[in-house]
Amino acid sequence: MFELDSRLHNDTFFVCDLTLCRVLLMNDSQFPWLILVPRKNDIAEIIDLTEHEQILLLQESATVSKVLQAVFTPFKLNIAALGNVVRQLHVHHVARFEGDVAWPKPVWGNQAAVPYKEESAKLLIAQIKQHLERENAK
Amino acid sequence: MFELDSRLHNDTFFVCDLTLCRVLLMNDSQFPWLILVPRKNDIAEIIDLTEHEQILLLQESATVSKVLQAVFTPFKLNIAALGNVVRQLHVHHVARFEGDVAWPKPVWGNQAAVPYKEESAKLLIAQIKQHLERENAK
Repeated sequence: MFELDSRLHNDTFFVCDLTLCRVLLMNDSQFPWLILVPRKNDIAEIIDLTEHEQILLLQESATVSKVLQAVFTPFKLNIAALGNVVRQLHVHHVARFEGDVAWPKPVWGNQAAVPYKEESAKLLIAQIKQHLERENAK
Repeated sequence: MFELDSRLHNDTFFVCDLTLCRVLLMNDSQFPWLILVPRKNDIAEIIDLTEHEQILLLQESATVSKVLQAVFTPFKLNIAALGNVVRQLHVHHVARFEGDVAWPKPVWGNQAAVPYKEESAKLLIAQIKQHLERENAK
């Protein structure tokens, strides 16, 4: 059974499961920030996935990227698989704007998170799910 | 004709061209750090590439990841398409070690680069090219 790393669990909201990955919303209202976690245990690197799974990850990354563009119209997407702190493979997708609190630096480790208000998170998750369904239906 | 961003040109050494991407070695001796740049102009996001090109990028990213693992045996790979400063699509592949100068933070924007000595860079590039050829022949 797939087990999500406890730090990822604590720092995010569940959005939905795609074919390979779990989609999470980072609980930081400073950035629209979705994380894809392949639902396989003991995977740290993209190349630890099979070739078929790597292509699924690529496709789901493209879907999530298009959703972030559709909902937030960012200046730039930041996509990254780091894993220095949480080793379980997870791919960040962050919508960046000129003048956001970390701009032009990366978002990791430079400022504390500002959690969403519960109602805002619920609304945002519903909106993202709707766009994911629309994107997947294409 | 493909034009490489001048900042990428200035900060890196040319390694070789793969089917889609140019391979560059970041001129920072603190981290084994390869960059893939798809040889197409006016591309900022991975999803600006065609689906076929995205799969090529994924395959070349896997090749470069395996070469970094084979040559350096890192604790973790950091793979990222950021582009907040240089907009031309480029994908970082950084071999990370517990205790490297930025650990566990990302490498971007936290410390000045320490350029290679010319002879070290030449030797390293030759070694990387040899491993890329070996990996591509598989």
